[in-house]
Amino acid sequence: MRKRNLETCFSPALYEPERHAGSLVVVIDILRATSAICTAFENGVASIIPVATVAEAREYKEKGFLVAAERDGYVLDFADFGNSPFNFTPERVAGKTIVYSTTNGTGIIKLAHSAQYIIIASFLNISAITEWIVARDNDVVLFCSGWKNRFNLEDSLCAGAIAERLLGTSHYSTICDSTHAAIDLWSLAKDNLTGYVEKVAQRSRLRDKNLDDCIPFCLSMDFTQKIPVIRKGILVATND
Amino acid sequence: MRKRNLETCFSPALYEPERHAGSLVVVIDILRATSAICTAFENGVASIIPVATVAEAREYKEKGFLVAAERDGYVLDFADFGNSPFNFTPERVAGKTIVYSTTNGTGIIKLAHSAQYIIIASFLNISAITEWIVARDNDVVLFCSGWKNRFNLEDSLCAGAIAERLLGTSHYSTICDSTHAAIDLWSLAKDNLTGYVEKVAQRSRLRDKNLDDCIPFCLSMDFTQKIPVIRKGILVATND
Repeated sequence: MRKRNLETCFSPALYEPERHAGSLVVVIDILRATSAICTAFENGVASIIPVATVAEAREYKEKGFLVAAERDGYVLDFADFGNSPFNFTPERVAGKTIVYSTTNGTGIIKLAHSAQYIIIASFLNISAITEWIVARDNDVVLFCSGWKNRFNLEDSLCAGAIAERLLGTSHYSTICDSTHAAIDLWSLAKDNLTGYVEKVAQRSRLRDKNLDDCIPFCLSMDFTQKIPVIRKGILVATND
Repeated sequence: MRKRNLETCFSPALYEPERHAGSLVVVIDILRATSAICTAFENGVASIIPVATVAEAREYKEKGFLVAAERDGYVLDFADFGNSPFNFTPERVAGKTIVYSTTNGTGIIKLAHSAQYIIIASFLNISAITEWIVARDNDVVLFCSGWKNRFNLEDSLCAGAIAERLLGTSHYSTICDSTHAAIDLWSLAKDNLTGYVEKVAQRSRLRDKNLDDCIPFCLSMDFTQKIPVIRKGILVATND
């Protein structure tokens, strides 16, 4: 049986769309975008429209949509709330379509356009997405969002955790140094993930803005079974 | 006292020239370019001219220079030898100027043009370059060459080893996730570096071409005290 190829990409600046045509791309941005998206679907959001610019987000707001929008951690004045997972409560989001302003995320969705699937991962849905991935015959790219195109540790750890599980099945092989590195970093962090994440740069950035209250939650496993997937540019939950 | 900032860059595609103006850039490409350069200087080469294209290398050859030139591990037909450190013997190189054809390396030198210093590092000169770096008051970037713009493990390990030594002095601080990752990978590898490097992709590539005989040498420490430095686009050894 053909082994599926497993790769990890540490930054949008390192992504190679032509190499990953037809692949299954797993987008990871655990502090906080992909954790917030997983939480929103668990809490019943119908769909999420990612938009790149503040102007687009504002237009949607004027049409009556709920808008989640931040820049560098600060909620935009016209937005309904920011990007913390804790904002996406059932009371606010159940049954709704939300507009989510994210420069980084929309860039990633564009980059990954050649993929067969683009799904959203975090520790919050790690078991569910791993099962979903294994059930498909695609090569897999674990796409870490990084921070302003830089490598970041927290997304690499999540990639390592997913890679360890995938390689634990008989379906995948890898000759990708980034995947080996992610697994090795995960092996160092997993017994005390909260302690390890203390040294992560984004931990300090969020703390400086009093936005770090969600970190323990973002590091917790299996809050949800939802699989957020991009369909025609919009995020919906799938189980098929 | 001001702490100097220490950062690590995992790929030319992630390098930010404007952020590193005035810094000391440490170029790392241990399998095999920077190991070969360190060996050449230990063996008495006078200077090394890095050139980007095969055409340039051929022109220099026609002018009578010694030329080291490979593409994907294969020695170019007009060249005197390839890029293995073992080619740069005292008999061949002492007192000579060598032309070294390297697409990747010349790209890196261009990228790092805003730096105050660009030096060449490998395990072969790790103690000497660490001392040299500490004696200068610059912020430092450990610039891993990677492979075709991708992250690679072997350069990251060398960056981690250098970073560990620099942070062991009182002069540096870092809030760079790449540096933390490099140090953590090094901590896993250092007790059995040869064993760890077995899984590195470049290890397989070199083995497939019977070019892996130099790997144990490239992983050995302190073969030389030489500090190769770029001066006006040309590599010379410095002790000042």
